Amino acid sequence: MTFAGKDILTTVGMKKNELIEVLGISAKMEGIVRNERVSTLLQDKVVAVLFLEPSTRTRLSFETAVKRLGAKAITVSDAKTSSGAKGETLADMAKTVEGYVDCIVVRQPTVGGAQIIADAVDIPVINGGDGAGQHPTQALLDLYTMQKERGNLEGLKVAMVGDLKFGRTVHSLTYALSPFNPKEYMFCAPDALQIQESIVNDMRAKGISCVKTASIEKALQADVLYMTRIQKERFEDLAEYEKLKGSYVLTREILFKGNKDITIMHPLPRVDEISSDVDDLPNAAYFRQAHNGVYVRMALLALVMGRA
Amino acid sequence: MTFAGKDILTTVGMKKNELIEVLGISAKMEGIVRNERVSTLLQDKVVAVLFLEPSTRTRLSFETAVKRLGAKAITVSDAKTSSGAKGETLADMAKTVEGYVDCIVVRQPTVGGAQIIADAVDIPVINGGDGAGQHPTQALLDLYTMQKERGNLEGLKVAMVGDLKFGRTVHSLTYALSPFNPKEYMFCAPDALQIQESIVNDMRAKGISCVKTASIEKALQADVLYMTRIQKERFEDLAEYEKLKGSYVLTREILFKGNKDITIMHPLPRVDEISSDVDDLPNAAYFRQAHNGVYVRMALLALVMGRA
Amino acid sequence: MTFAGKDILTTVGMKKNELIEVLGISAKMEGIVRNERVSTLLQDKVVAVLFLEPSTRTRLSFETAVKRLGAKAITVSDAKTSSGAKGETLADMAKTVEGYVDCIVVRQPTVGGAQIIADAVDIPVINGGDGAGQHPTQALLDLYTMQKERGNLEGLKVAMVGDLKFGRTVHSLTYALSPFNPKEYMFCAPDALQIQESIVNDMRAKGISCVKTASIEKALQADVLYMTRIQKERFEDLAEYEKLKGSYVLTREILFKGNKDITIMHPLPRVDEISSDVDDLPNAAYFRQAHNGVYVRMALLALVMGRA
Repeated sequence: MTFAGKDILTTVGMKKNELIEVLGISAKMEGIVRNERVSTLLQDKVVAVLFLEPSTRTRLSFETAVKRLGAKAITVSDAKTSSGAKGETLADMAKTVEGYVDCIVVRQPTVGGAQIIADAVDIPVINGGDGAGQHPTQALLDLYTMQKERGNLEGLKVAMVGDLKFGRTVHSLTYALSPFNPKEYMFCAPDALQIQESIVNDMRAKGISCVKTASIEKALQADVLYMTRIQKERFEDLAEYEKLKGSYVLTREILFKGNKDITIMHPLPRVDEISSDVDDLPNAAYFRQAHNGVYVRMALLALVMGRA
Repeated sequence: MTFAGKDILTTVGMKKNELIEVLGISAKMEGIVRNERVSTLLQDKVVAVLFLEPSTRTRLSFETAVKRLGAKAITVSDAKTSSGAKGETLADMAKTVEGYVDCIVVRQPTVGGAQIIADAVDIPVINGGDGAGQHPTQALLDLYTMQKERGNLEGLKVAMVGDLKFGRTVHSLTYALSPFNPKEYMFCAPDALQIQESIVNDMRAKGISCVKTASIEKALQADVLYMTRIQKERFEDLAEYEKLKGSYVLTREILFKGNKDITIMHPLPRVDEISSDVDDLPNAAYFRQAHNGVYVRMALLALVMGRA
Repeated sequence: MTFAGKDILTTVGMKKNELIEVLGISAKMEGIVRNERVSTLLQDKVVAVLFLEPSTRTRLSFETAVKRLGAKAITVSDAKTSSGAKGETLADMAKTVEGYVDCIVVRQPTVGGAQIIADAVDIPVINGGDGAGQHPTQALLDLYTMQKERGNLEGLKVAMVGDLKFGRTVHSLTYALSPFNPKEYMFCAPDALQIQESIVNDMRAKGISCVKTASIEKALQADVLYMTRIQKERFEDLAEYEKLKGSYVLTREILFKGNKDITIMHPLPRVDEISSDVDDLPNAAYFRQAHNGVYVRMALLALVMGRA
């Protein structure tokens, strides 16, 4: 398959060879950034980076990717200043911007919004997150990070911890990693925030062993520990929240009870679910994971614009 | 005349040969964008794009123009973060920014604000819209679009529909097209939103036939149909609004009653005054019109910085 | 000393030879801007310009510096859209952005915040103002301006007028100029807004003559008159404010009572503490002072990235 001219809207349905292609180009991009810092690969391109809901981290990561490829960015970083405020549809906005740029990166709060934009225009569209829907570049940078940290994506035992019910990144990652024959998925969360049964069923249908647990100590036996934040606002009973949250905080101390070789990931931002004394451990991969986002987004930009 | 070092504050008073020069350079710029995508013409220039009131569409169009010319932009996209909030005058802000950049593009809500800035600084200033005042780059991109869509600007029959009383773009266009001997201006609006008599008188004094009508079906006989939005907030009596608005909605169905060769324009954003089933007709020029804005703004930037 | 890889967090403790080095490189940068307009010196660099509180003037000055050096900027211009809103610490934000860019410029409202960021990352950090704390690039551009306007930084008689109690720029300047053997510091303010005694003591310990006065007419005898704004909100008694503010307004008329050769500076924005009829006098250096900020910030960027 060629990615040229295609949209990147979801990782659902991406084939293993496509995922491997993205990871390979990402590694090339990392080489470019480490050696030349800035490339001229896309110097004749202009990219619209439309963040119609705030997400500084992801926006800056995309803009860095655009600029390290030598391309130019035009940016919307605030929904309130957008024409949407005047009642314009997403499709109309996209059809206008289509005439300005060579590619659209869009983040907005409506599930399916990126698809609407992709349907409206002929240029490539990259989904930077559509509400509770998809966030494919996050799932791809998670894969890239696992591959780099573990040396190989095949046969991993991955524990996901925290808010597995509402956590978009966990859902995407579960599917994106599935073609790489994971040995086991361990879903570690309080009952109220456990993963949907439908996802577990999908994974089991692919032959992946799935375990649910409420104990973070079990999760510490995995190869990869994927931490997420438990959001206070998900609880009706705040006392319940206060009781639970402490059980899902990763500290240096409890890490010693687990696999010494474990890789710790987190989509960030964190609040207090990983103690800062963990940051200095070689296992703490979450800032490297954030940095990998630039390489993966460079790869996707180059691929869809036919230059990779 | 040479545009080098001049300001672009209004189309009022622009001579026919000046308009023709802008249109000619715009066509060159379109060629550059279609072939090379990005130029190095202004690679040593920095342009301030100061949007002190929100207008994403126009801001992105100007930034695209700056970047496709190889120039760099520094941008303000939100009034609230500007020094104006600290009580600074427009003139002081401009005199500061003058030392940073080679050209200022400004949009702000006060009629005459762009003139104040132009008076304060020695570098060229381009008015990106000053409240209910002027929006010269919109008028010029409207002319450029008519010329491209019709093949020739001379002798056109142009119908303007919607809010002609408050619509800034309609006023500017009426004057900007006038040197090209329009055959007829048809002003199509409910009485409450009809064009000012003074504008009609000005046009008749230039020998242009002017017709007022409340019927969009008459307007459909023109060469060019320039649609605008009827704003709810202009009506004291909402029942009146609800009764009227349906009469000024363009649908595929009513278009069949008119000139088959008609060119449909709209300054965008639209809300529901053009039905989306019109978008696929070859006559629907409004997204091309928006795209043309980039070429016209490139032309103006290059002209005032002496590089066209 | 070499600045390569270092942070610029404060001017306190900067040695005279370091200050002289910065001023010398700033002059080179001014030459580049006057002749080539844009350089390729940092064309392989990306700089994060993180303004977590609004300050359009300083942000645009830094972005201009980045772009005139050929580097690329990724920008945050609004606290509300930052991940800080999700409870992320400054250190976490910085450790993420560290992987995107080659240098961080940061403005944020907490005293010591720039130091926290510098401690968290290995790349150079430039403090663009940390609340009531330091604003080193302002102090350095003030020195650069005095040197250009007076021909020499040594032995100046400098009067500072206005809000000396809360005015961050006055505090920084007082220390930054001190190695250049000022002949006299004159602190001109109403009692309620006079400079802290500790600063006066520090300066006297360096052998600098210090005078406090409430009379702006005395201040007019200095070589340099550094005006600042008296902020209404500092006064509990508004009647007191109204009575005082008029005494610290600089007009063309009262200037004739002072040193004809005086250099008038102001960190801007001004509200009404300098009458606009002063702007045309050759002595009025405050807009040139603002423009100098670009050269000084270019110098600092080039220095910390090891290219000056």
